[in-house]
This record gives sequence, C-alpha cells and structure tokens, in this order.
Amino acid sequence: MQIKKQIIADIESHKYPEGSQIPSEGELEQKYGVSRITVRRAVSELVTENFLVKKQGRGTYVQQPRMVRNLLSLDSYTHYRESLGERPERHVVKNEIVMADSRIAEELGVAEGAEVFTLGRVMLLSPGNSGYEESIYSVDLFPQLNQLVNDDSSMTKLLKERYGATMGKDRNMINVVSATTEIAELINVGVAEPVYQVDKTTFSNTGSRLYHSTMFYDARKVSFVVEN
Amino acid sequence: MQIKKQIIADIESHKYPEGSQIPSEGELEQKYGVSRITVRRAVSELVTENFLVKKQGRGTYVQQPRMVRNLLSLDSYTHYRESLGERPERHVVKNEIVMADSRIAEELGVAEGAEVFTLGRVMLLSPGNSGYEESIYSVDLFPQLNQLVNDDSSMTKLLKERYGATMGKDRNMINVVSATTEIAELINVGVAEPVYQVDKTTFSNTGSRLYHSTMFYDARKVSFVVEN
Repeated sequence: MQIKKQIIADIESHKYPEGSQIPSEGELEQKYGVSRITVRRAVSELVTENFLVKKQGRGTYVQQPRMVRNLLSLDSYTHYRESLGERPERHVVKNEIVMADSRIAEELGVAEGAEVFTLGRVMLLSPGNSGYEESIYSVDLFPQLNQLVNDDSSMTKLLKERYGATMGKDRNMINVVSATTEIAELINVGVAEPVYQVDKTTFSNTGSRLYHSTMFYDARKVSFVVEN
Repeated sequence: MQIKKQIIADIESHKYPEGSQIPSEGELEQKYGVSRITVRRAVSELVTENFLVKKQGRGTYVQQPRMVRNLLSLDSYTHYRESLGERPERHVVKNEIVMADSRIAEELGVAEGAEVFTLGRVMLLSPGNSGYEESIYSVDLFPQLNQLVNDDSSMTKLLKERYGATMGKDRNMINVVSATTEIAELINVGVAEPVYQVDKTTFSNTGSRLYHSTMFYDARKVSFVVEN
C-alpha cells in the first residue's frame, strides 16, 4: 500500500517527529490523495506495526523512541541514570523477611527455609516509563540489610560499603510474559500486556552467589542492546 | 489464593510436567477441595502468568520450556542446532536484489541506491517453533551471493569460504513488536501477538560492517540469556 510506505518514509525522515501527533484522517486523505478508508487501514496497520500509537481521545502519535539499556551493564540503575545526567528515582514498595522456598533456595544457594530478604522497588526509567525490580538477599550473608535500605539506596554501593561484597559476573535471562495484576499496577501497563521479565543472578568476584533479581519492564518501551 | 500456589508448586515439583495436560476442572475441584469458581479463577490467572497455556478445544497444558538462546553467540544458527545434536532446518523464502534506501544504506555503510541482496529464511528452532531472519548484504562486497545461497547454506561458512570474510564483533538490539501479517504467517503466531525483533549488525574482524540481520521470534517461546 503506497500511502503506508509514504507515512513510514515521512516518519523516518522526521517530517513527523517521534512523539508528535500525526495529521487528522481528513488531512491525510487530502495530503496523500487517497480515500478515507485507505487512510484508516494504513493508520491501523502502522499502529499494529508500532510505528504509530493511538492515545485514547487524543489522536494518533508517532511512537516515542524506546529506552535502550545495555544488558552487559544492567547491574547498576544508579549508574544508568547518572550516565543520562538524571538522578535515580526509586520507590521501595516491598520490604519483607520470608523463608526461602525451594526455588529461592536454589537461586541463592541457601537452605530451604533459610531467612531471605525480599526488596521490591519501582524505578523510573524516563517520564511515563517505570520498571519494577524484586531482589532477594540471604539474611545470613547480608544481616540487617532490610533496615538499611530506603528510597535513596544504591544497592551496589550499599553491599560494597557495608558488607564488602564486590560484584563479579552476572547472568541475565530475558523472557516476555503477560503482566499480572500486580505488575500491571506497578509499572502502569494493561493487565496481560507483554512485559519483559529479566531474571538476573549476580555473583561475587570470587564466583559465589550474591543475590537474585527479577526485573519487569514494559515490552513496548524498552530495548536491550548486547554488544560483544 | 491457596490453590494457585499449590498448582504452581505442583508444576515446579514436576508433578505436572512441562507440556503435559493438567487435570480437568472437576478433578482439580476434588483434588484441592475448592469450588469450581475458585478453580476457574486460579487456572485463568495461571494462564495470564504463563504457567499454563489453553489449547483451543484440547484443554489446559503446562507451559513448554522456552528455547534459550545465548545472545553473545547468536550469530551461527548452524552451530546452535549442532550444539543441540540437531540438523539445521532452514527454508529460503526471499531472495531479492534491491536498491538500498536510506535506512539500509546507513546500516550497511553503503551509498543510497547501491545494490543490496536481501535474504529471508525461516529457521526451525524446535518442533512448532520457528524464527524468521532477513539479512541484507552489499552486492559490491559479496557479488553473486544470491546465486550461491540455498536451504542448506550456513552463511557464516559461505562468507568465510567464498569471500574470506571473518566475523568480529556484533551488536544486537532486542525489541518486542506486534507481529505483522507477514511475520505472523512466517513464524506461525497470531497477527499483533508480541514477537521479538532482534536487529543485528555484524562487523568483520577489522571492524568494517559486514551485513545486517533482522530476526523475528515468538516472544512466548524464546528466552535470551546474556552472561558477562
């Protein structure tokens, strides 16, 4: 379809800049010299293909550029925000001591039933785009950590300064899952919409397991880059 | 909800193995001693959360394990299949010489309007799970490549043996997009369902651009692992 290609070309040449509203159906009809039905079909396909996004009651916009995170340096949210010249904005929403079930025991390398600290934080990536991170720490390895954490804490810094823990390698697994009610609310996406679930195990510089994190991001708003 | 946790525990302990059908609603009702409504709600939430999958007219099954691909060695499909003890299964669906538009010119580092070879292949990852890869090569750099390619070709091997091209670093960008009609048909997912789009630029061992690939995978069936 010719009009569709023309609109894509106009997006790619920044005639319609990222995040801007595109002209109305009537204007597109005139501009490209095609019927209203053809305009509608083209716009609808461009929404499906993520070139455009419909905002309820507000018209159709060119998709915003996604947040790009480098997976090989995913470990420090603080460093990520600072590299953008922004302050970290985190909010602790869960701070619990629980007993490790079999899955957690395996992930942390602790005994089943051992005390573990669960820390859940919502982190601002960019305006209107937040991620949720739930990390699990062995209480034996990091005693009283639950009392030291607040919205301002950089965990990388805290673990190093208070516990002498130096991070070594980590292992990340990326999946796309449907947002549960809880996740949907935390990162402001629709229930059952696709979200990234990134499971990360962080090891110390001597190769022992330090902690496990599970991060959730809006799959429509985040890209991952891996360079080797 | 207690029954939901019990079903998860039964999945994780492999009482309900991956890929197997779970008991009927009536059986679950009896087994866990709860009402039909509670069973239904639990199963529905477990489907949303990707623990279970409903197959139309065939009941509810435990989610199959996803294909795991290591992003840092994503370059060779042939090597990937061989590491699983399987033969590569590829099918060429597109073999075209076109003129580079501005986007392609930038990706390949060629002049706009230069001839490029577009190769589209469907690749089997595991039974019922295929990916689609569309690669673009400069005709100037790889003359006649379009005539050398068939379903059996390992591109890594071909580029090396015929053109002396040795791969160096690559750069991968992972996005989640809605499947277009074309992609949906090629990899057998529903239109507008979430699919991974992985854009990869491969450089030679001396740092020049060799080629660009865009790969599409069913986001529900593929995981990516990144270890540093």
